[in-house]
Amino acid sequence: MHRGAAESDIQNVSKHLTSRGIRVERLDGHEQTILGILGGSGGYDVGSMSAMPGVQEVVRVSTPYRLSSRNSHPEDTVITLPDGTRIGGDAPSIVIAGPCSVESEDQLRRTAECLRKSGVRFMRGGAFKPRTSPYSFQGLGFDGLEMLKKVSEEFDLFIVSEVMEPAHVPAIAEFTDIVQIGSRNMQNYPLLRQIGNIRKPVMLKRGAAATIEEWLMAAEYILAGGNEKIILCERGIRTFETSLRFTADLGAVPVVKKLSHLPIIVDPSHATGRREFVGSLARAAIAIGADGVMVEVHPDPDRALSDGAQSLTFELFTEMMGELVRVADAIDRPLLVEPQKRIMDSGERIGTTTPVMVKAQK
Amino acid sequence: MHRGAAESDIQNVSKHLTSRGIRVERLDGHEQTILGILGGSGGYDVGSMSAMPGVQEVVRVSTPYRLSSRNSHPEDTVITLPDGTRIGGDAPSIVIAGPCSVESEDQLRRTAECLRKSGVRFMRGGAFKPRTSPYSFQGLGFDGLEMLKKVSEEFDLFIVSEVMEPAHVPAIAEFTDIVQIGSRNMQNYPLLRQIGNIRKPVMLKRGAAATIEEWLMAAEYILAGGNEKIILCERGIRTFETSLRFTADLGAVPVVKKLSHLPIIVDPSHATGRREFVGSLARAAIAIGADGVMVEVHPDPDRALSDGAQSLTFELFTEMMGELVRVADAIDRPLLVEPQKRIMDSGERIGTTTPVMVKAQK
Amino acid sequence: MHRGAAESDIQNVSKHLTSRGIRVERLDGHEQTILGILGGSGGYDVGSMSAMPGVQEVVRVSTPYRLSSRNSHPEDTVITLPDGTRIGGDAPSIVIAGPCSVESEDQLRRTAECLRKSGVRFMRGGAFKPRTSPYSFQGLGFDGLEMLKKVSEEFDLFIVSEVMEPAHVPAIAEFTDIVQIGSRNMQNYPLLRQIGNIRKPVMLKRGAAATIEEWLMAAEYILAGGNEKIILCERGIRTFETSLRFTADLGAVPVVKKLSHLPIIVDPSHATGRREFVGSLARAAIAIGADGVMVEVHPDPDRALSDGAQSLTFELFTEMMGELVRVADAIDRPLLVEPQKRIMDSGERIGTTTPVMVKAQK
Amino acid sequence: MHRGAAESDIQNVSKHLTSRGIRVERLDGHEQTILGILGGSGGYDVGSMSAMPGVQEVVRVSTPYRLSSRNSHPEDTVITLPDGTRIGGDAPSIVIAGPCSVESEDQLRRTAECLRKSGVRFMRGGAFKPRTSPYSFQGLGFDGLEMLKKVSEEFDLFIVSEVMEPAHVPAIAEFTDIVQIGSRNMQNYPLLRQIGNIRKPVMLKRGAAATIEEWLMAAEYILAGGNEKIILCERGIRTFETSLRFTADLGAVPVVKKLSHLPIIVDPSHATGRREFVGSLARAAIAIGADGVMVEVHPDPDRALSDGAQSLTFELFTEMMGELVRVADAIDRPLLVEPQKRIMDSGERIGTTTPVMVKAQK
Repeated sequence: MHRGAAESDIQNVSKHLTSRGIRVERLDGHEQTILGILGGSGGYDVGSMSAMPGVQEVVRVSTPYRLSSRNSHPEDTVITLPDGTRIGGDAPSIVIAGPCSVESEDQLRRTAECLRKSGVRFMRGGAFKPRTSPYSFQGLGFDGLEMLKKVSEEFDLFIVSEVMEPAHVPAIAEFTDIVQIGSRNMQNYPLLRQIGNIRKPVMLKRGAAATIEEWLMAAEYILAGGNEKIILCERGIRTFETSLRFTADLGAVPVVKKLSHLPIIVDPSHATGRREFVGSLARAAIAIGADGVMVEVHPDPDRALSDGAQSLTFELFTEMMGELVRVADAIDRPLLVEPQKRIMDSGERIGTTTPVMVKAQK
Repeated sequence: MHRGAAESDIQNVSKHLTSRGIRVERLDGHEQTILGILGGSGGYDVGSMSAMPGVQEVVRVSTPYRLSSRNSHPEDTVITLPDGTRIGGDAPSIVIAGPCSVESEDQLRRTAECLRKSGVRFMRGGAFKPRTSPYSFQGLGFDGLEMLKKVSEEFDLFIVSEVMEPAHVPAIAEFTDIVQIGSRNMQNYPLLRQIGNIRKPVMLKRGAAATIEEWLMAAEYILAGGNEKIILCERGIRTFETSLRFTADLGAVPVVKKLSHLPIIVDPSHATGRREFVGSLARAAIAIGADGVMVEVHPDPDRALSDGAQSLTFELFTEMMGELVRVADAIDRPLLVEPQKRIMDSGERIGTTTPVMVKAQK
Repeated sequence: MHRGAAESDIQNVSKHLTSRGIRVERLDGHEQTILGILGGSGGYDVGSMSAMPGVQEVVRVSTPYRLSSRNSHPEDTVITLPDGTRIGGDAPSIVIAGPCSVESEDQLRRTAECLRKSGVRFMRGGAFKPRTSPYSFQGLGFDGLEMLKKVSEEFDLFIVSEVMEPAHVPAIAEFTDIVQIGSRNMQNYPLLRQIGNIRKPVMLKRGAAATIEEWLMAAEYILAGGNEKIILCERGIRTFETSLRFTADLGAVPVVKKLSHLPIIVDPSHATGRREFVGSLARAAIAIGADGVMVEVHPDPDRALSDGAQSLTFELFTEMMGELVRVADAIDRPLLVEPQKRIMDSGERIGTTTPVMVKAQK
Repeated sequence: MHRGAAESDIQNVSKHLTSRGIRVERLDGHEQTILGILGGSGGYDVGSMSAMPGVQEVVRVSTPYRLSSRNSHPEDTVITLPDGTRIGGDAPSIVIAGPCSVESEDQLRRTAECLRKSGVRFMRGGAFKPRTSPYSFQGLGFDGLEMLKKVSEEFDLFIVSEVMEPAHVPAIAEFTDIVQIGSRNMQNYPLLRQIGNIRKPVMLKRGAAATIEEWLMAAEYILAGGNEKIILCERGIRTFETSLRFTADLGAVPVVKKLSHLPIIVDPSHATGRREFVGSLARAAIAIGADGVMVEVHPDPDRALSDGAQSLTFELFTEMMGELVRVADAIDRPLLVEPQKRIMDSGERIGTTTPVMVKAQK
């Protein structure tokens, strides 16, 4: 309550709450009175009282998210894929890489080969693309998903691809191993609800203007639907600084790890928008303790149909992988690097593989 | 190009462009060379070249939006509703008011009565609500839309209500006079495309972290689909200042009016989040030249199921209306205020009404 | 305290505080315990406890500023100048206008004449200029101040000019009627302390990244020194939106008026950076209830040594004045407009003038 | 120029420039005309033309800073201290640590001992403190500097301490090895000019709302005065995210290294404001390639007179040092760690020491 709020105002607010079955505790200070609400407000929107006479401020001391909070789930969530590969907790950090957009089977195959040479198991590729301009390339749609599926089976890769509308969720979940919610859709609630209904892992990118609390509330929608396999992805927030496309909020990694049990990875490609800065930001993401990074890589970035400026060449990608392995090693959280040999030798897909942690060679 | 870029790099970039049929003009300065692209890039993503050797920066000098630009459409867009009421251009500024969420027919009827007493013709009311928390009230859905329809016919009001998913667009367009795209969905492209397919007016709210350029690009999606009846709505952007819910970017009003031909209104309720500040911000919005304002009003805000803190009481709403009429008058752009008398007298709905501009009484 | 904080942690924090003579009240909720600090912390930095075991968050419920708070000073501060002209409270809103930099006596005289024709009494002009680049024009220094003094006496104007370093404060206070602290110096504490020692009115511009609370804390430095004549000036904050130079935070006007008793004006020139938007933003500032506006005006803006793009021409300035008078009238808070006639007729300076409120002629 | 700008407007702008001796090149595109300015504008503020008829935008393609640009100084600046210790370029990364405020000689001595045990050579400590509140502890002033001097000589440490006003510069330069400009003073130009006149190294912290360009322009003031020994320090920028005190902009490190030759370090203590997050952010700063980090450490943080919540305990500091050594090693840019033994053994100050790079022991 305001300093000097009238006794009648204080009692009015107090009555307003108790009449709704809410338990109120009164604290009379030297200058101000505080009314504490204990045990929850039973769905009543307490914030709506901030305009009542005598009320100075409504301060929330408990978090509005429950299922995504570490309070309700003290252990780290670890997501286990069908072949036993694990994400989060103390599992090795992962690298997800691939083109912004699926353009052709050849493009995917060349990329997959490069990935496997560095031991990477996760390939990204957009088939449905959210583009700022209606005149830009909008993706190959389901044709693109089929290409992803085909190439992923050849190279034993897990596929990450974005879904943009609720009606597409079941189909896209069929084609992918991890369904991605893009940052523009972080608060697309019909989409989040549909995602809550499936049981595939989902990568939830942070909105460019979303607070960490709002991000965890978006995860809450999915958790409330029963899907607990959520990977958060920090991809840069919008600030006044325009030298890079967005501002990578790396501090969000340890903050999220404190507040929540969900795994969190970082996307340095979208955060920077410039290929020359992707590698160093990826190193920093691993050093700060992210559960992985996702980067864009393309056989010929200058000819890419989207996001060419931020896509790594194969050469830069391979260089980055070498660095990440060493930094990951330095913090005792190795990178998941699966030797390509087993696939190259046999020439056929391997059923269940055991992830191997390769220590940095110096 | 960089200061001191190698001649070979300059020629390489130049060739890269001309090989795509893009016309390039070279400008050799004292210290730097500029390559100008004239006549458009024919769909090629020029930005992807920013990482090529020797390139310092890719600067866009023409806007990426075409249909929403004033260059392509020098006259103001004026939206005409079935009864002849006009929005935008030199038409009177409008007021849209109503509850955040539809809660009951009684709530709507009481609000409608208050609106008509002040001469307001546009009622807002959410039936499908995008809520940050999955545990908050999510709206009455189609039941709410039916209530809106019924009450709007009784009181001769135009209805504004939000659509959240592509599949709902046709149905919601049936029930409303203006379909609203909320700020969280400003870049929900499947939704924008659906909206482009209908011919009902649409109100496109600005995303909390969207630049004006991105906002006009979102409008471009709708225009590209053939729907030209777009009203932009500024509702506050996210900044570091947290004393109010968002920061109203009123400067966006004259900037948008310069860049685009589309009407633009302001929502001071969401921008401030606090009822005590709504009236003064609404005055400022009218004074700066907005084509209207949209505010939340509720018969009993402290008991509202959503956004109670920012909803005006009937008393505050009526007071605000009196102020807006005077400010609108002072800038020679009167407020659309239609005398209630004609409806109250006859007790029945009036077919086609002629909007009347009421001058302020002092 | 955290949900599930150990009893020993709660007692430890409680003891930590009581051992410093701080009164603590304990509130045991269903899920969490709150420790309330009543009656102030006696200089102890309570925030430093946020890292103690078991502490979830340190929430401040009383404001950290005292003298600038409306709690400590419920009535509006009204600043009275030597001739009786008043600023703030229910006094007429003022207009301060003039060039960014003092360039010559002729420039000032032509500007002063234009100001007086519109009835303006306050002239701004920079003699010491904070420029982003060391290679830009840095101002005429004390020569500029002497020109300001001379011209102000000829035209009976009050002078507003900026001070940049503590050592200059006494001298600049001699030459001006209102000493300006620029936004870059809002937290230049040695400068604020010096300003606290004088008794001239001071205009304290908001820092581009300063919260309202930090701004009022800066005012607190001046008030703590004994200088109560503070005018706050909102001049745009830095956000992600770059279509204008800064984002005018007009909502800050009613918020500051609620939290503090100090007068607040708005600078639409620096907020927008573009002359074509200054007039409409000034109207909005008056409509929202600012105690005045400050704008840049120049006899030949395209040739100005600084800030030419945002300086009004005489023609635009005169047009804006006509609009402001009408908007001010519409909200029953007239603009201070002093007929030029008395000065033009007599040709000599008038001792004590009585401010006259001129109603808009329509 | 605008699409469809009148030929007369184009010629008018062109003449306006050539009449000032500025060379203009005209580029007529399909839809728009571009006027290129080559060879500099000779001090004329070209931006002031953005409001001239027909002008769409004034775009700068060369950077406004010269001396701080890598164009003018392609090699990294390396700062060499009297004993040969080097900062920047390929020199080992440094750690600067110490209390926020100097409180007592005992506090400093205990801290110095902890620093030297970890091999750290740089101690920070504030004697003049910029505090948001006039009622907070403002520092011990010159008494504090004398304590710093004394303890630094005992332990062979370099001292970093802040200067807040121009008049103090010579005295503080006497007492310290690196003079710090705080983020609130980044654009305090009289102070920057004074700093330009001395020859001591200076650490220039980034303003919380300063773009990288503005930061380099602030460095330009110091360079223009002749002082080339500048270390930039990223300490977090102000954004909408409030879960930490500021948002660390680690991406600024590689961006600055590309644009400028100056060394850059990171301050994770002010960026996070919470001790539990300092260590992980410091690791990320080293991993991304910073030339060093600066952290706050205190013998008893819960009793610190300022910034207690963000100060590391000795235990956390020692743990962090071990981690930093390993991460630095992983990127082949070792940390400067000077064995304490030489000092502890002899018990007396060592004249000129040779920095030793200690590889991580695993």
